[in-house]
Parts: sequence; C-alpha cells; structure tokens
Amino acid sequence: MVGAGQLARMTQQPAIALGIELRVLANTPDESAARVIVDTRLGDYRSLDDLRAFAQGCHAITFDHEHVPTEHIRALEAEGYSVHPGAEALVHAQDKAVMRERLTAFGAPCPAWARVSDLSDISAFAASHGWPVVLKAIRGGYDGRGVWVCHTPEEAAEALAGGVPLMAEAFVPFSRELAVLVARSPHGQGVSYPVVETVQQDGICVEVLAPAPGLDPEEAAEAQRVALRIAHELGVTGLLAVEMFQTSNGLLVNELAMRPHNSGHWTIDGSRTSQFEQHLRAVLDLPLGSPSMSAPVVVMANLLGGDDPDLFKRYEHVMAHDPGIKLHFYGKEVRPGRKIGHVTAVGDDLERVRARARHAAVYLMNGEYT
Amino acid sequence: MVGAGQLARMTQQPAIALGIELRVLANTPDESAARVIVDTRLGDYRSLDDLRAFAQGCHAITFDHEHVPTEHIRALEAEGYSVHPGAEALVHAQDKAVMRERLTAFGAPCPAWARVSDLSDISAFAASHGWPVVLKAIRGGYDGRGVWVCHTPEEAAEALAGGVPLMAEAFVPFSRELAVLVARSPHGQGVSYPVVETVQQDGICVEVLAPAPGLDPEEAAEAQRVALRIAHELGVTGLLAVEMFQTSNGLLVNELAMRPHNSGHWTIDGSRTSQFEQHLRAVLDLPLGSPSMSAPVVVMANLLGGDDPDLFKRYEHVMAHDPGIKLHFYGKEVRPGRKIGHVTAVGDDLERVRARARHAAVYLMNGEYT
Repeated sequence: MVGAGQLARMTQQPAIALGIELRVLANTPDESAARVIVDTRLGDYRSLDDLRAFAQGCHAITFDHEHVPTEHIRALEAEGYSVHPGAEALVHAQDKAVMRERLTAFGAPCPAWARVSDLSDISAFAASHGWPVVLKAIRGGYDGRGVWVCHTPEEAAEALAGGVPLMAEAFVPFSRELAVLVARSPHGQGVSYPVVETVQQDGICVEVLAPAPGLDPEEAAEAQRVALRIAHELGVTGLLAVEMFQTSNGLLVNELAMRPHNSGHWTIDGSRTSQFEQHLRAVLDLPLGSPSMSAPVVVMANLLGGDDPDLFKRYEHVMAHDPGIKLHFYGKEVRPGRKIGHVTAVGDDLERVRARARHAAVYLMNGEYT
Repeated sequence: MVGAGQLARMTQQPAIALGIELRVLANTPDESAARVIVDTRLGDYRSLDDLRAFAQGCHAITFDHEHVPTEHIRALEAEGYSVHPGAEALVHAQDKAVMRERLTAFGAPCPAWARVSDLSDISAFAASHGWPVVLKAIRGGYDGRGVWVCHTPEEAAEALAGGVPLMAEAFVPFSRELAVLVARSPHGQGVSYPVVETVQQDGICVEVLAPAPGLDPEEAAEAQRVALRIAHELGVTGLLAVEMFQTSNGLLVNELAMRPHNSGHWTIDGSRTSQFEQHLRAVLDLPLGSPSMSAPVVVMANLLGGDDPDLFKRYEHVMAHDPGIKLHFYGKEVRPGRKIGHVTAVGDDLERVRARARHAAVYLMNGEYT
C-alpha cells in the first residue's frame, strides 16, 4: 500500500487476520501506519524509482491516498505489476473533470458542470445555472479544500486568482449527503455496503449514520445501483466510495474515492467485513466478504484534535462512561481540527446511539460533556 | 507482552485501534507475533536479564504464555515493574497443585485431588476415589499433554516413570466441557463473557460454541460467579479463563489460564470487545469493555494443519463458499495437527452456524467437504 496514513494503519488489522503481509511506502518512519507495520519502506510516492523499488516482490499494489501521479501508475502497470485501482480507473478519482466527463457519458446523475478557465466561462455558466456557482480545483482538493461556493463574480475571481485549473458545478440544494461504499474485484465481483448518511461541518465529515436514517428502500437500492455501475464502467478494482447529494429530484453524484474511505470506518465495528478487509480481498482478487451489518444502527464520529493535545487523560472517562464505545486512534500528534481517530457506537435506537458516539467524540476532543 | 505466539499477534489488532504501542519478547524473528509487531525484541523468557532489558520503558508487562519462571516475575515486580498477572496470581496457572490447594481453601468446586509421589500414593487415592485415576504433570502440561487417564496401577506406573512431579485427580464423568472467560483489572473491576461450550478431540479444543447451547441460566450465572470469585481470590489482573466440567452434580473447575485463551477467540468477531482488547484494558488498568455478543450464536473452529502445507490454495474456496466466514491465520508454518489459525461464524441458528464453521475448518485443513 502506497502511503502510510490511517487508512494503511487500519488495513493492517485485517491483514494480520488474513495472513497477508502488508508493506507500506511511508514518507517518514513516524507516520500513522509506519508505527504498526513491520515492512515499512521509506520513499517518495512522487518518485517512480521509489515506487519501483517498493513494488518489487508485491503481489498487488494499492493506495492509501490518491496522490500518486497517474503516469507512474501507468508505468508500473506496463512493467507487469498488479495495481489496484489501475491508472485508467484511478484518474477518475484524481481528476474531477475527467470524472464528470465519464459519468456524464454513461448517464450517471451529476450536477450541471463545465470546465472553466476564466471569469467569462464562469459568468456564462452562471447565466445558465444561476449563482451561487461551485468552483472546484480539478485536482488535489479534499475535506472541503479546493472547493469554493461563489455567490458573485468577485468571489469567483478570487478563486481564479489561486491559479489552479478549475471546473464549475451548479450549486445543489440538497437535503443531505449520502455515501455508498462498494467493492469490485478484478474478476468482476461487486458488493455494496448499506447506504449511509454523512454529516458534514465546515466541509469536514463529522458523523456517519449507518444505514442512512429513513431512506426510502427504492432510493437506497438506486444509490447502490449507481455506485456499482460506476465501479463497473470505470473498471474500479478495490473500494469505491461514491458521495452523493440527496435532493428533491433524486440523487446526484458528488465525489468519488477509490480506497477505504472515512464514510466506511463504521464497518470495522458494524459490519461482518470491514472496508479494510474488503479492500484487501478486492485488490488481491479474493472472493468478497459479507457487507451485512452486525447491529441495526451504527454511528461513527470522527475525533478531531482540540486545543489540549493530551488526549489520553480523557481516554479513561470515555471508556468508563460507555463500555460499548469503540475507540480508534491513528497514532497522530494532536493538532486542532486534525482527524486523529474515530469512535463507533452500535445499537438499536438511532438517537441514543448517535448521542453515545457524539459524547465520546466531543469529550475526547475538549473534555466537554454533551 | 512476553512471548510472540498467536495470542500476542492477535493482541496487536486492538492495540492498533487503542493507540497502544505493543512490544513483544520473541525467541526468533519469524514467530507469529514478531511478523506483525514493529517493536519486537529478541530474547529468552527464561533469562531474567533478557526480561529486564525487555521491560525497560514498558507501562505494563503481560504474557502470551505461562512459562516465565515465577521467581523472575517476582524479581520484576520487586524492581517496580507493573506485571499483570503478578507472580502471586500466575503461580496458580503454572502449578496445578498450588491451584487446587487454593481453590479448595476457599470452596471453589473441584474434583477430588491429591499430590502423589509414588504408586502407593496413587493406589491409596484410587482406593478412595476409584479407577480410572487422572494423573497430571503439576507444571508445564497443555493441550492434553501432561495428562494421563490411568485405568490400572500399571498405567499409573508408566506415567510415574516420566519422572515429572504429578498429582492425582478423580476421573469426572462429565457431560460436556464449559469455559468462562473473565477479566479483572488492578482496581478490581471485573467482567464475564457468556459461558461457552468447548468441544475437544484428542485433548485439543476443536470448536467453541457461544453461548453454551441449552445451558440453564442459573447454572450459567453460577459458572460466571465461580470464575469471577476465582479472579478475585487469586488477585488475577488481566484475563482469566476457567475451564469447567459440567456434571450431573454441578460444575467442577478443571483448569485455569491467565491470558487470552483459545476458548475466547470467538470474541474477535462475536463480541463488542474482543478478549484481546479486554486483556489490554485490564493490564493497563483501563475501564473494561462490554462483553456482550454481536450475534445470537457464534461458533469458533480451530484450524489444524493437515498433510498438505499449501493452505492458501484452499483459502479462496472457503471465502467464496461463505462470504460471512471470518478467517484468522497465525502466520505459522503448516504442520499436521498444529493450530495454525481459526475460523468464526456468527448467526441465529446453532446447527447452521456450526456447520459453516466446521466446513471452513475441515476444508482448509484437507480439502474435504463436510
């Protein structure tokens, strides 16, 4: 696995069970996954030489993030390495304009969109679709970074001033955000987890509710069909997370990720097969595991760093307060707003389960009692 | 954790989640846990110097097996190390005669027993309790090794000829074997998992059924009370597994183990808190986790090595046949009869769940379809 963040770290847990020897490529030896994986290699994921040296002897190569240059992935594939997802699929998670083109081509539901290179393009787009216009960096954005909701040409000009290639999307008046996590293996087996609701604050996912509360079963099935179709059309191997907007006119695809995803962390404690195990199975072309839930309701809350870096003094309280809460720490230094872990609660009653997860997350962050 | 077998290996999984930096003392770098734990130190658990060097800087010391000499544990405790279980507790899992004396003293239900040093002692014991007489090595036996069921003085003489210190126990006509896993922390919190049935073949545990099918709730509660009482009386810190015989006259304590135990492997996939997480919490004096089950029925089957060491060619079949089966491999070379992993199935119907677990275990061992 190229990259040694928390996704690689959490992949080590099922790798241990499955007897899979996981190797990671880390930038530094103190990264999240490097702390728990024996076969950690140091190198730069932007260097083809480093990637080649890393890949030697691996049965399959996969990724903890989407920042490996597409041309390097193509080179590795050309040299015979088994890379999942491959460059032809992954580019759709790296380049939002390529993704929109491809999705539009086979009829996946998307917001109106256009490539834009100057203010006149944006004004023309707004003339058709109205303000606000959502401008997105075509490459490299995440967690709300690289996205600007512009209400006026002046705001759009500011975003343009950054100098990165942009695209425009119509602002979608959505009722909530959903996510569908699917897996697809090289031999074409596909599986979908239940549709979840993702709750965002300031562009960062703070909570995931599984399954999405009150979602019409027809609409849930449609969301899963769309996600599996995208995986098939794009030739995704491994996991694919499809973030969607729920609107009064149906679902619209927002973003794609081709790796274990924050919206699937609940599966560690709440599904028979965690997303990390599923990703390993998929990239190694093993039969996929059951995505069924191990409880009627599962809520995951992200742990964000607070002002006090000494998280561990609040650790005991949370464990004592709720013996059923599951804690996951990423071995990262606490910095305000940084994702340093997550908590999961399972049960029968959504409001109660959600309150438990939120209490743990808020208390761990700042010692406040909600 | 002193020792780097599969128990230490499986402890690494929750250590990753809890942000606990697990260090192991391994004999060789290719042991089960050494393959997946970055902070592996090499050394001999029988050497106090090696133990001292290993313990430096650890917040707590615990064990993957019960073979560390009691006097070394006493020495570490005297030097201020936090060792769990401590020597005073652990000796009861190391020395069966000391265990029987202590249990008898506070009234825990045990088979009739006596220390024996020669054939006349054994004959005297048989005169009171009848043949067969069960002779046990006082130290060092496990998985049926170190236990002799002797029907005649001649068979007893053979066992005596081995030269190891023995004790005698009355043969118990039990209906089945049960096990209770409890945890106790230094500050005295205790928790009990549901009572399970352990199914043995040739002295080796092959299956664990959770909860023990058809067990009277009163008898289950009594078994849990006995196990928690033993943990309290012996001052156990960490996990305690109490193996029991169920007889028409009630329960009798058979063996004790003070560490994660084979009878608790089902908890990884079948309980909200795995025994490995529970052990970490207990030895670090953190609040204990919920022992509740995540499904009505859980069956664990041990994977024993078969004649064909190429286990992995049967791996795919098992995954494809049952997407819900959970596989756990210990990273050990396959040798006939050796415990190399386990499988777990969860569900609602005991016979169906048991058949699933058994199919996976038997097929992985020898490619036979049950």
